[in-house]
Amino acid sequence: MAAIAICAPSTPFTHEDAARVTALAKTEFPEHSLHFHPQCFLADGHFAGPDEMRLAAFVECANDPAFDAVWFVRGGYGAVRIAQQAMERLDHHAEGKTYLGYSDAGTMLGALYRARIGRQVHAPMPADIRRQGGEDAVRRTLGYLAGDRAGLEPSLGETPAVAFNLMTLAMLCGTPIMPGLAGRVVMVEEVSEYLYAVDRLFFHVTAHLGGIAGLRLGRVSDVPENDRPFGTDADQIARYWCQRHSIPYLGRADIGHDAANRIVPFGVAGETRGQ
Amino acid sequence: MAAIAICAPSTPFTHEDAARVTALAKTEFPEHSLHFHPQCFLADGHFAGPDEMRLAAFVECANDPAFDAVWFVRGGYGAVRIAQQAMERLDHHAEGKTYLGYSDAGTMLGALYRARIGRQVHAPMPADIRRQGGEDAVRRTLGYLAGDRAGLEPSLGETPAVAFNLMTLAMLCGTPIMPGLAGRVVMVEEVSEYLYAVDRLFFHVTAHLGGIAGLRLGRVSDVPENDRPFGTDADQIARYWCQRHSIPYLGRADIGHDAANRIVPFGVAGETRGQ
Repeated sequence: MAAIAICAPSTPFTHEDAARVTALAKTEFPEHSLHFHPQCFLADGHFAGPDEMRLAAFVECANDPAFDAVWFVRGGYGAVRIAQQAMERLDHHAEGKTYLGYSDAGTMLGALYRARIGRQVHAPMPADIRRQGGEDAVRRTLGYLAGDRAGLEPSLGETPAVAFNLMTLAMLCGTPIMPGLAGRVVMVEEVSEYLYAVDRLFFHVTAHLGGIAGLRLGRVSDVPENDRPFGTDADQIARYWCQRHSIPYLGRADIGHDAANRIVPFGVAGETRGQ
Repeated sequence: MAAIAICAPSTPFTHEDAARVTALAKTEFPEHSLHFHPQCFLADGHFAGPDEMRLAAFVECANDPAFDAVWFVRGGYGAVRIAQQAMERLDHHAEGKTYLGYSDAGTMLGALYRARIGRQVHAPMPADIRRQGGEDAVRRTLGYLAGDRAGLEPSLGETPAVAFNLMTLAMLCGTPIMPGLAGRVVMVEEVSEYLYAVDRLFFHVTAHLGGIAGLRLGRVSDVPENDRPFGTDADQIARYWCQRHSIPYLGRADIGHDAANRIVPFGVAGETRGQ
């Protein structure tokens, strides 16, 4: 059903894990074809190859008419170093594609959403195969690309929505790759941050989200233990900052850095999502 | 020489450490009088008392005509929750004062600088007494308030300068308490962040610093060890992002989360700093 190109704008993957994802796809989704770009396996310090190679691999995948979708292999950090240049190099073949990922790959989704290139989807990535129950996460994305809507985030409705990692979104705010989010439901999730850092990020992000339709909080997981308890929980933090910045707080979202992470196709105003 | 009010917009201090700072001041700077606001010793979860009490204590210190200076006792996190409301409550007594601190207290300095209230000074805080050699850091601020200019950051010149913790500045960017920094030399320092997070913060901050006179990098200390080396160092990161965003990189600054942290009075355009 879909020819899927896989590249790594942030950090590298391994051949072993790629083989597991390929085997799962071959068995359960024979209608798909998966193409791991060799750049996925490069390493250059923190990154999956130098900036120029990560940029070139993404542009190659996005501009290749043979592919229907570009699936980001993994987050980590690194996409902000190439996202703006990448948009400038995309041609019309990039416009018809679906782009999928989350975490640091949300940077690419955000830049594409701003540039109105293709369809952006918050979705599990190949690297989720490493999690306990991770096969289900990988299946969710492959199923979505096969037309299965069961993996969609359950609160999705008429109002267009987007989903981001909180830190990733915070870093985009006010930069040349930040998309306009007015009128959207914005879902955020976080992992491995102290609650004081979550509070700080909420100050920053909500100051930049004037005019959004509302905010939903995904899971805030693996919070490190601090020398003293923060005093409130992530839900109270989200409520507090939404109230401070006059943003409707809509409750929880079924997304997070885990195997249960659901799918959020970025909504376009006037377009009905879901079915 | 100076009546100094001390309050805690972020996290709490202890009576024991306050006594050490008071004793040092009494012995070496008998011309000063130090007044620790009792709010410094409150605790409410992460914070030095609830938002309303931290806010009230700061406003009380700033608006009291008996004081010449307001010294922030400690960083940590919390000032963004009260900074904007604080500016709205300050009266003309707050305008003649000097405000000193760094780290999370940079939030208060930034908001005051934006509001053009008083003189803002990046300077060691009472909590630095806890560091090895911390007495010298405390002496540096007390000496500065007594007219000693030996503790000034050595690169300070004709161009007005400011200094911030990198994360603190990143969180201010684009918010209602972010000061305009065009024409200023901006010094940044960081502590306890992975180099990939420093790189990410530099992407964000330099995207917001168009028009500054230049950037100087303070110390980036206590970098946690990651599962793999980042590949470049903090100086290369600063150079890279300055070049990307057409900001002159001016070299290093003698500031940081350490006892050697020097003093940076926030410059006002047209005003000569230093001597």
